[in-house]
This record gives sequence, structure tokens and C-alpha cells, in this order.
Amino acid sequence: MTRLMNFILEADELKQVKRRTHLLGDGRRENDAEHSWHLALMVMLLSEFAPERVDLLRVLKMALIHDIVEIDAGDTFCYDEAGNEDRVARERAAARRLFYLLPGDLAESMCRLWEEFEARETPEARFAASLDRLQPLLLNYHGGGTAWRENGVTFGRVLQRNRQIACGAPLLWRYARGLIEDAVKQGFLAEATPRS
Amino acid sequence: MTRLMNFILEADELKQVKRRTHLLGDGRRENDAEHSWHLALMVMLLSEFAPERVDLLRVLKMALIHDIVEIDAGDTFCYDEAGNEDRVARERAAARRLFYLLPGDLAESMCRLWEEFEARETPEARFAASLDRLQPLLLNYHGGGTAWRENGVTFGRVLQRNRQIACGAPLLWRYARGLIEDAVKQGFLAEATPRS
Repeated sequence: MTRLMNFILEADELKQVKRRTHLLGDGRRENDAEHSWHLALMVMLLSEFAPERVDLLRVLKMALIHDIVEIDAGDTFCYDEAGNEDRVARERAAARRLFYLLPGDLAESMCRLWEEFEARETPEARFAASLDRLQPLLLNYHGGGTAWRENGVTFGRVLQRNRQIACGAPLLWRYARGLIEDAVKQGFLAEATPRS
Repeated sequence: MTRLMNFILEADELKQVKRRTHLLGDGRRENDAEHSWHLALMVMLLSEFAPERVDLLRVLKMALIHDIVEIDAGDTFCYDEAGNEDRVARERAAARRLFYLLPGDLAESMCRLWEEFEARETPEARFAASLDRLQPLLLNYHGGGTAWRENGVTFGRVLQRNRQIACGAPLLWRYARGLIEDAVKQGFLAEATPRS
């Protein structure tokens, strides 16, 4: 019980890990706990868009724990190429420390679940990962592209990054692609980096 | 699709609904989205403490949506007796507006799930409700009782309010009761209202 509770208390820290995405309302930056809740809600509501029959319980569990490693490793902005080079190593070390606060069996099953999400080899992991990209895209699009502008991200990179939505949820990719193209039309996603 | 997305965007507002509980780290007040994530994580990790076999997927779904009505109805502090008198009516109206942003079938199934949680008649709802009490109790205890002190809440009321944990998770109630008693011993939960 003590080990369970220690992990649950440690998890409270995820509420302090800031992402680049801004909320729609007051525009402050979203944190990982809020994002994980929003993602899990989307899994629940959009499950009919998964291409194969998926085990929804496992997708929900993945959504709930997929970012816990960021308590130690921090949020790596998806368009940060340098940061993404050592992301895997940093997150693996975090998974070992954090999940092993739990009792043995549970620690191992949480680690396996997280590894499954990272590997994107099962339909469950691919669906979870697709929605994990769609969630910030939605906020960014409906918030006028603040995080894109703040971080100098252009159309080509957004398209490349989010194209993977097609692997886990093809119909949602069609929708997402429409948003990305419209963002360029509306002028809040730059088509290319301006020449200096 | 438009109706699904409108609901998902509206749900972003839950990140702005502040609760009385404070986070462990920097002590700011928790919001409903963070709380819902933490609750769902606890459901996942503590499922062995449910007294009967519960449908874990349904408990998780309840945890994820149980507070969405507070986007309209606001958070009613559990020890606020006046606020709790009209809470049900305010939250029912909110459920009608919010869940019916969704397409018909999904709206109805979300409403039913929320009503099930509120009624506490199934083991799933009772287990979810027990953890919904345990989560703020844990943060309050480990944060030195800030929300109790700020709101003049005493031992008897905390005991009465949280005793219902026993209905959904008897073993966790034993643990919770120990925390409440220790909070009095440590001096961060008053035994009774001081006489003036």
C-alpha cells in the first residue's frame, strides 16, 4: 500500500510539467496531467475511428500513463530535433525510476504498457499515438496557432509530424489534414520559413 | 464529426474549473481536469481494492467524465452545505447542455454514465466515488491540511464525508481513516471548531 501511495503522490508532479500547447480559454500553457485527461476523453469518444477492433481499456490506460516519464525527463517539444535525439534514453531512465516506485508486478505491467505505447506496433498503441497528436493540433488550430508561431513551426513540419495520425486513425487524419491546410489559408501557420 | 469536436473543444474548459484542494508541489489549487486524470490513474492502480468484480472500463469512463458538468455548474466544495442543496439541479442542467453537444447516441450514453456515477447504486459507481473522495484526502493530508484549515473543516466532518469510502472500497477506508486520525494528531486537522 505504501508503494502504491508513493507512486500516486509522485504522479501529482505531472500537473507541473508544462507543454508548448496553450489552452483555449485564458491561453496559459497546458500541463501534462490536463493533456493526459483530454487525450483519454478523446480515446473514449473517438473509439469508433480506430481502424481495427482495439482493446479500449488498454488504450485508455496508455493514455493515462504515456507522459508520466516526463516528470523526470520533461516535455520534449515534438518539433525540437536536438531534444528528440536523446529523448528515448532520458525517458527510459525515467520509466525505470518512476514505475519501479510501484510494487513489482504492477511496475512491470506499467513499464510494458509504456513501452508498447512508445513502440507503436499494436493497433492500441497506434490509435493512442494518433490521438496524442490530434489533441494539441486541435488546441493549436482553434487557438489561432500560438504555439506554432512562438516556435517558428511551418506547414511542412506540421504535416510531416501529424501524418502519422493516418497510421492509427485514417479518417481522423483526413480531418486533421483539413485543419492544417486551413491554418495556412487563414494565415496562422506559415507556409515556409521566411528568408532572412 | 463537428459535434464530436465541439464537445472535445468545450471540454477544454474543465482545465479552468478550480477546486479547493492544493497540489503538493507549488501549492496552487488543483483544477478539475488534473483531478480527473489523477482519479482515473488511481482507478487503474487500485482496482484490486474494489470489493466485487467491477467493469474497470466503465469505472475509468466515469472517472474521466464525472466532473464535466462543473464546466457549467462550477465546483461545489464538498463541505459547503448551502451549495450542495441545489447542486443536483445545477449539475443536471449542465449535463443536459454539455453532453447533448455530442451526437444523439453518444450523448445519451454519456448522460447515463454520469447518472450512474451520481446514483452510487452499482459497484462501479461506488468504487469510482470512493476514489473520488480518497484523491483529495491524500493531497490534503500530504499537503499539511491547507484546504481543511482554509475552509474551517474539522475532524467530525472529514470523517463523516469520507466514511463513504467504505461503501466502495472497504480496505481503502481503513487506510483513509488512519490518515484522518493522524492529521488530528499532527495538528493540521482541528478536532472541533474552537469556541469563540
